[in-house]
Amino acid sequence: MTQYRLTPLADALPSTVPFVGPETQERAMGRAFDARLGANENVFGPSPRAIEAMAQAQQWMYGDPESHDLRAALAAHHGISPANIIVGEGIDGLLGYLVRLMVTEGDAVVTSDGAYPTFNYHVAGFGGVLHKVPYAGDHEDPTALFAKAAEVDAKLVYLANPDNPMGSWHEGPVISSALEALPKGCLLVLDEAYIDCAPEGTAPDLVADDPRLIRMRTFSKAHGMAGARVGYAIGAPDLITAFGKVRNHFGMNRAAQAGALAALQDSDWLARVQARISEARDRIAQISEDNGLVALPSAANFVAIDCGADGSFAKAVLDGLVARGVFVRMPFAAPQNRCIRVSCGTPDNLDAFAAALPGALEDAKKG
Amino acid sequence: MTQYRLTPLADALPSTVPFVGPETQERAMGRAFDARLGANENVFGPSPRAIEAMAQAQQWMYGDPESHDLRAALAAHHGISPANIIVGEGIDGLLGYLVRLMVTEGDAVVTSDGAYPTFNYHVAGFGGVLHKVPYAGDHEDPTALFAKAAEVDAKLVYLANPDNPMGSWHEGPVISSALEALPKGCLLVLDEAYIDCAPEGTAPDLVADDPRLIRMRTFSKAHGMAGARVGYAIGAPDLITAFGKVRNHFGMNRAAQAGALAALQDSDWLARVQARISEARDRIAQISEDNGLVALPSAANFVAIDCGADGSFAKAVLDGLVARGVFVRMPFAAPQNRCIRVSCGTPDNLDAFAAALPGALEDAKKG
Repeated sequence: MTQYRLTPLADALPSTVPFVGPETQERAMGRAFDARLGANENVFGPSPRAIEAMAQAQQWMYGDPESHDLRAALAAHHGISPANIIVGEGIDGLLGYLVRLMVTEGDAVVTSDGAYPTFNYHVAGFGGVLHKVPYAGDHEDPTALFAKAAEVDAKLVYLANPDNPMGSWHEGPVISSALEALPKGCLLVLDEAYIDCAPEGTAPDLVADDPRLIRMRTFSKAHGMAGARVGYAIGAPDLITAFGKVRNHFGMNRAAQAGALAALQDSDWLARVQARISEARDRIAQISEDNGLVALPSAANFVAIDCGADGSFAKAVLDGLVARGVFVRMPFAAPQNRCIRVSCGTPDNLDAFAAALPGALEDAKKG
Repeated sequence: MTQYRLTPLADALPSTVPFVGPETQERAMGRAFDARLGANENVFGPSPRAIEAMAQAQQWMYGDPESHDLRAALAAHHGISPANIIVGEGIDGLLGYLVRLMVTEGDAVVTSDGAYPTFNYHVAGFGGVLHKVPYAGDHEDPTALFAKAAEVDAKLVYLANPDNPMGSWHEGPVISSALEALPKGCLLVLDEAYIDCAPEGTAPDLVADDPRLIRMRTFSKAHGMAGARVGYAIGAPDLITAFGKVRNHFGMNRAAQAGALAALQDSDWLARVQARISEARDRIAQISEDNGLVALPSAANFVAIDCGADGSFAKAVLDGLVARGVFVRMPFAAPQNRCIRVSCGTPDNLDAFAAALPGALEDAKKG
């Protein structure tokens, strides 16, 4: 007998990381990236008010385990009740709690093939069985997702709108009407991490108490606070209450709560960031075109660029960019893996990308 | 069928919080506490260098998922390898991961009756069966704990040294020799959250690769960074690696990592804080004596004060202190619940405590 005994489930899991961090790559390369455009971080950063609030926070105190003030402000912002909101350690943390609440060994879960790996990581981690549906023309396919959910008796179905890694999106009414076919006993996890980068009307117009779905939001993207780990979920009060069964009650960083509250109140800053994201998307499209590539339309803070061949070719382009000091990532599944994914950077970041891309393409074409 | 389906285990769990936060009490009272002495926070705060590092952190970036720099510094500090160290979202977060790795429904776990409730929360949350051993003279009893572990075939046994909530401690060699009787197949979770407040020699002199135990440390106590959520565990590399199966890889706040690194390097500040903690312990003992009460010896940043009667009386004293604006807590289990637990405060905080205690005692005596 070994000294410690993992559960059979834990024993069977790989020790893995859904994504390798850019710092790991930098340490391996022995140099820093010139442009950090791979993790869909927001290079324009948080509101100065959020930065100040985080700097002023008194970190000797535990954070409020109820995140009361932040939840109250979010409730006012969305015109809903604080009882509809749970704050957690980023969407990643909240997805982990949600999967733990719903999924045990053998339970069916549905997602798109090539969608968010961290969700899949959590499902596997609790013994769930993932069923994957293909994208339809680089869009996640709600109708196919919900049909698959009915077929396999899924407890959860995951849909990101806007989508990551493709940047594609559905208008809100498309989601709302597809929801009519969501089977009973299946909860939709609607990941809206990028919603603040999307056109008006991308979020479906649904009441917060709708028992069919839980919506995930974050301060990591448009609000520029990825390092702070603040996400929240909107759902029916009984579902929100259930998080109290499993969450790390004192897990929320005190400064992060204060920063998110300040960020939420600075709508001017958010508008400026949204404009800069939009400019950066246009610039990435232009750089793509200049290099004979096609940038896909995006409602997120990144752009998927079709490299015009297969996954191996796109991977070679990616490797060429990384070797030239530009951190980018790419979709995992075919045929979306014909693309690379480039986050919206500053003009300087995108100059670095523009400078690196021709050489990376040339190398990739040489094989 | 309801729209969502919890797992049978989740369905059976209460929606609970191991501790009610002081902010919740303040909202209920409609006023702020004058002295926050209930959560064993460190009122002397983090190193100014840590505060500066957190303020300077670029929160638009995700934190390094490997916590490489912090782990390297911790390894150097302890004279061990980074492979012996996992960094996580406070000891609470690490305990959750550890229990998830080891405990599934019906598995036996041993702790002391009245020891850390958040550990118990995690065990219950994964379906484990808790077996509790009484304190021996206000000390946790390693011999009894390990004997119980053998009796019930426990997978985990929890021991805090110094102990919370009593502040009592064992010298390191006591732990080391008790470990000889730890049954095979049982891992000791040695919670050393308060070790930096304890006398030299309280930490057992064991190699980091010892497969029998995992040690939990934190920046929340002596380092004054409770709000930042930075803990770490020291263990054998294969055990440390297993955390990669279940942890939230990008869960560590970027500023918190930088702050912890800076705190670790400021040993002068730590020494000053340790001196102030020691002074505060003496002052709390003096205030106790002035009121005819007995303060228990403490190796932590709090003092348990024996109120001289039963749990109801101590609770009445506690209520009287809270009503007078002094936040304190108390042990949960008899006979330790004859005490209240007072964190080491500033001289002003302890003035407030000294001013409130006589009235609280008088009210409690009136019944």
